[in-house]
Amino acid sequence: MAREAGRDRAALIAIDWGTTSFRAYRLDAHGAVVDSRSAPKGILSVAPGGFPAVLEAQIGDWLGDAPVVMSGMVGSRQGWMEAPYVPCPAGLDEIASALLEVRKGVWIVPGVSCRDESGVPDVMRGEETQVLGAERSGLFCLPGTHSKWVEVRNGRIERFSTYMTGELYALLRQHSLLGRMMEEGKPADARAFSEGVARSAEPGGLLHHLFGVRTRALMGELHAAAAPSYLSGLLIGHELRSSRAREILIIGEPALAERYREAAAALGIESELLEPTCGTRALFRLGRR
Amino acid sequence: MAREAGRDRAALIAIDWGTTSFRAYRLDAHGAVVDSRSAPKGILSVAPGGFPAVLEAQIGDWLGDAPVVMSGMVGSRQGWMEAPYVPCPAGLDEIASALLEVRKGVWIVPGVSCRDESGVPDVMRGEETQVLGAERSGLFCLPGTHSKWVEVRNGRIERFSTYMTGELYALLRQHSLLGRMMEEGKPADARAFSEGVARSAEPGGLLHHLFGVRTRALMGELHAAAAPSYLSGLLIGHELRSSRAREILIIGEPALAERYREAAAALGIESELLEPTCGTRALFRLGRR
Repeated sequence: MAREAGRDRAALIAIDWGTTSFRAYRLDAHGAVVDSRSAPKGILSVAPGGFPAVLEAQIGDWLGDAPVVMSGMVGSRQGWMEAPYVPCPAGLDEIASALLEVRKGVWIVPGVSCRDESGVPDVMRGEETQVLGAERSGLFCLPGTHSKWVEVRNGRIERFSTYMTGELYALLRQHSLLGRMMEEGKPADARAFSEGVARSAEPGGLLHHLFGVRTRALMGELHAAAAPSYLSGLLIGHELRSSRAREILIIGEPALAERYREAAAALGIESELLEPTCGTRALFRLGRR
Repeated sequence: MAREAGRDRAALIAIDWGTTSFRAYRLDAHGAVVDSRSAPKGILSVAPGGFPAVLEAQIGDWLGDAPVVMSGMVGSRQGWMEAPYVPCPAGLDEIASALLEVRKGVWIVPGVSCRDESGVPDVMRGEETQVLGAERSGLFCLPGTHSKWVEVRNGRIERFSTYMTGELYALLRQHSLLGRMMEEGKPADARAFSEGVARSAEPGGLLHHLFGVRTRALMGELHAAAAPSYLSGLLIGHELRSSRAREILIIGEPALAERYREAAAALGIESELLEPTCGTRALFRLGRR
């Protein structure tokens, strides 16, 4: 029923097609989501040349009545087609003028690139629509496998930095000596998490602090079931401290965003949690251009 | 021939029995090495209870004519028998009084433990004999899977810190997204290594710098064959910077020690390379007590 109602009013189909998942939204003339679908059909699961067929299979019945705007890794070298990065500073105007039409009425949003003061490049794909959709100025933190820190001023991304926090956390749990002494599948341990955050502010650096996960466990001062939370706090603490931020806007999966909020509070950083779905708003505005 | 000559003069058998390798030395009455053997028979390859048999198999023909002193992970919970850690400050006297006799004439050297100013524990097994054998005061750096930084004053270990540098390097090469874009088996790239070291001194922190390995490669600014060297420089640079050292003594496998020396020079840290085999000297002195 909802879908039929949505069908009548669709003005745009917005798609967030990332590394591991595919999420599609039908938007009405006001940009409101009237229907959505998601599937574990991230670009890593799609063979080269297979993207049009996956799109058909997922939302074939939606196609034809509205333009489709897709953001995320679908525009990477491993995606449907590579959409070259738009350099910072970049707002919706710069991004809109670089949309890539991959078939009639189907557009890919380019990623954004920047260089830090030392000239080292950084890139993102997908997060730009999330931060621009929030329609706020400030320093955004988007936690994840590769956390993005994005500075937005007056509707334009000025610069950003990526942190490998989530990937390193997974690597250390799955493959390191630390992982071998951890008990998995237990609920998060709030105390161990905050001990990890506090540790990140002490001397020694991350490479040394990581070894402390092992030694504290060895000495019976950190329980195997609490060790993943301690490690998480340690890594998130180091990320937050490296950012040198005082005030941040967090967009992310709710449980993870909440952990960042707690860690930020412990480190004296003010934070505000934003809705994680604000990306459709930017896609809607891009689609109208 | 050399072995027969050595046989006559053996005063002590010194063994460095670590996680992945077994190294045995026959020492004469002056502590000089007259014969040595090594095998990839680290404690990880020995089943519980299998240690006496491995010792027999490796140096059975040496046994009986001199006491045996063993250091390293052989004294850990996963080794022959656990030799409890001696707390810092610890010199040869403290260590000698805690030697553990596991069978007649066969002794295990205990490891050393300490706590940093925040009370977080740290431990080592084997490195203590290397630094005490050097008979020098100073800040020692022993690079490796778990690099040890050891402060020695007047023959005693005052404190030390462990860095997970080597393990993280291996993890990132083997299991991370960064590893996927690296070409393996190429010679070290000196320029990429020093770029990595220089990067470690820039703002952003390690979690951010790691992502730069990917983005520089993505942008064609770092060749796949040079990426391992850049990553190595980045990690070693972060370790050296975290230590806040000005002057260090390096003991390690020659190629790795040389990389640390180069990185230290680039970061304005004075360093001196010491012979990596000085551990037998301390074992000799321990054996005489």
